[in-house]
Amino acid sequence: MLAKRLQVLTQLNNFLKNKRVLITGIKGFVGPYLAEEILNLNGEVYGIDLPGEIGIHPLKKIIENVEIFEGNLEEKNFVSKVIKKVKPDFIFHLAAKSSTFESFLKPIDFLKANCIGTLNLLETLRKTETSTTFIFAGSSDEYGIVISSYKQYKKLKKKYGEIIPRPNKIPEFPVNEDNPLRPLSPYALTKIYGDFLTRQYSNFTKIKGIVARSFNHEGAGRGKGFVSRDIINQVILCKREGINKIKAGNIMAMRDWSHVKDIVKGYILIAEKGENGSVYNLGSGRTNSVLTFILLSLECAGFKIFEIKSKKYLKKKIENPLEERKINIYGFKFDSFNIDELVMKEKINFDIEDEGVIIETQKGKIEILIDEKRLRPSDAPILLCDNTKIKKLGFRINFTLKDIIKEMLEYYQTISLE
Amino acid sequence: MLAKRLQVLTQLNNFLKNKRVLITGIKGFVGPYLAEEILNLNGEVYGIDLPGEIGIHPLKKIIENVEIFEGNLEEKNFVSKVIKKVKPDFIFHLAAKSSTFESFLKPIDFLKANCIGTLNLLETLRKTETSTTFIFAGSSDEYGIVISSYKQYKKLKKKYGEIIPRPNKIPEFPVNEDNPLRPLSPYALTKIYGDFLTRQYSNFTKIKGIVARSFNHEGAGRGKGFVSRDIINQVILCKREGINKIKAGNIMAMRDWSHVKDIVKGYILIAEKGENGSVYNLGSGRTNSVLTFILLSLECAGFKIFEIKSKKYLKKKIENPLEERKINIYGFKFDSFNIDELVMKEKINFDIEDEGVIIETQKGKIEILIDEKRLRPSDAPILLCDNTKIKKLGFRINFTLKDIIKEMLEYYQTISLE
Repeated sequence: MLAKRLQVLTQLNNFLKNKRVLITGIKGFVGPYLAEEILNLNGEVYGIDLPGEIGIHPLKKIIENVEIFEGNLEEKNFVSKVIKKVKPDFIFHLAAKSSTFESFLKPIDFLKANCIGTLNLLETLRKTETSTTFIFAGSSDEYGIVISSYKQYKKLKKKYGEIIPRPNKIPEFPVNEDNPLRPLSPYALTKIYGDFLTRQYSNFTKIKGIVARSFNHEGAGRGKGFVSRDIINQVILCKREGINKIKAGNIMAMRDWSHVKDIVKGYILIAEKGENGSVYNLGSGRTNSVLTFILLSLECAGFKIFEIKSKKYLKKKIENPLEERKINIYGFKFDSFNIDELVMKEKINFDIEDEGVIIETQKGKIEILIDEKRLRPSDAPILLCDNTKIKKLGFRINFTLKDIIKEMLEYYQTISLE
Repeated sequence: MLAKRLQVLTQLNNFLKNKRVLITGIKGFVGPYLAEEILNLNGEVYGIDLPGEIGIHPLKKIIENVEIFEGNLEEKNFVSKVIKKVKPDFIFHLAAKSSTFESFLKPIDFLKANCIGTLNLLETLRKTETSTTFIFAGSSDEYGIVISSYKQYKKLKKKYGEIIPRPNKIPEFPVNEDNPLRPLSPYALTKIYGDFLTRQYSNFTKIKGIVARSFNHEGAGRGKGFVSRDIINQVILCKREGINKIKAGNIMAMRDWSHVKDIVKGYILIAEKGENGSVYNLGSGRTNSVLTFILLSLECAGFKIFEIKSKKYLKKKIENPLEERKINIYGFKFDSFNIDELVMKEKINFDIEDEGVIIETQKGKIEILIDEKRLRPSDAPILLCDNTKIKKLGFRINFTLKDIIKEMLEYYQTISLE
């Protein structure tokens, strides 16, 4: 057994040794984490990113020692020049405009950056007949609408009209790679484009193309404009300056949150052991609401939470929302909380009609205000990753949601919130 | 009954009366047919297309009397100017680069023309808050791989690797709107983008967006580079100049061929009665191989066909390949031919290994040569439209495959083949 484990470790250490690895979007949130892992495995890391300084990031130093080619993936000649120079054995294509919210406002920028960017990379590899392994960072947003119950299905039909394709089973949870794609944002559509394109090119070129459909991932370094960072920032202000209001959008959205460190290990695993032309879900196999993310952040910041209630309907309330629960839903088990169990079982719902949620803590009331400006025109209700397929390659999750939040709180407390 | 029928006719005549209708790609193959129908229904037709002469087309005259705005859909300002000027009640968005074959060679041109073009139209409508009905001409190519049997599934897995999503039933025929999308070409991907985008915009803007997934449609005016026209041209040469060779690509591909006149009626029906945000398959509910298209064209051109056989394996042969058959497959019935029944039942297969097919006719042998240059890197094996949904709106097919071929032969015999 030990011998076998050592062998596995050795393999992992070897497959990237002296291999030339190109990371696109290396200055982003995920890039530095991935670069660090690859450097630890003795790979040679190269980067592509737009010109400009890397933002606030705990691994900024790592990137400063990597050769980065600055330019725009939308420019064919730039891409071609870099590929010819680096001759990568592996490409991790992370570069993308990634804010779902923003994609409703600037869909053309998203189309150009994400679709043309990906196409330029694949076309260059095709034309130079390179047998690179190309890992495309897809997204759980590609799934969009996922049907969790008949009741929810009815509600979704009322909201979105006909759901196409119709579910062939209800619930569709947890979401595996065979789930229909029903994207709800222009961003999600650009990821579907890259996902399919990568697999098409794996069919008729020398490229080994594999897609990772990553679910939410967070950690220190997550940029502004993302829900997690937005919440953490506001919770720090609650703690530090006694502010007792938090603005949020769709707090009922349930997401499968992982630590970015677990996700980058998944990318590397897929590069080593993934099948050509295949798709792998990459997520934790847990789901928690945005509301839970807020409550948990408050708790980690020192607030004891006794009760939450609707601002408008005071009788609508939950005691001990963060009491731990072993959830067993649709035959799928994960550790969760009172509030999430109630949401998933459709026993409670806080939305715009409630005007907000009042949180009773030992330090007094804190209010969550549902902010219309933070609501998206359309939003996936629940995402929960079936990670069975990637687990078979050896994947596992090391961090809990609490670990992630604690790390983010700690990090952002030490730096400016601007 | 008669009263009811008259009422339906009156409705059809009325809903477009004095309505402002914009057709993109009006100089293409389908545009003039659609324009003619709409003019007959007393709609006001406007067109968008690239600058330049309209090609050879039987309805060229129709278009010459329509106001056409010349410019490129990739240019936002042009699109915006036209929409503000026309103020369309209906848009039929047909404009697209549409050669699957070419899309493998120029995927970036396809991405720009088809995706950016569609996005510019929808964005303009969103920004001007116009409640236009927007019909997107999608494609059966969006479906790509469709599983017809366990045997074929095994074969496809060998060719393409894992099929994602896996089928939840086998066969997946006929293809209805719930079938998974497994596109096989860069062209197909651009159509998926437009399909999803149209439906997304119908969710969160005033646009009434509906998608028609059109299966193959043909007729007089079909441009060069398309399989149907390519075959017709060669058959005319066989007849006129005694040439006894026809070059073709994947002659085993089975397609659902309709007459373009039936298809444009479908578009209009969807505009009148289709549900916001929905998808309608638009096809004949028949499927015939490219091989059948060739044989039938020869027959219509005066060749009696006795037998066909493999060029390499002479024992592999079929007598009376065009003998009529009532096919009943997967509970779906349609009129077809001996050869198609054998192909669908996987009893015969002619591919590159056969080097070609020898056709015995009363005027001697004609040879079909499988031309590698005409093969696509990847190609959907069988497409057969389940048109139940659109039939419920009143759709019906008026033309047989023979009608289509006869009309094409007649038309192209009278004009230059260049």
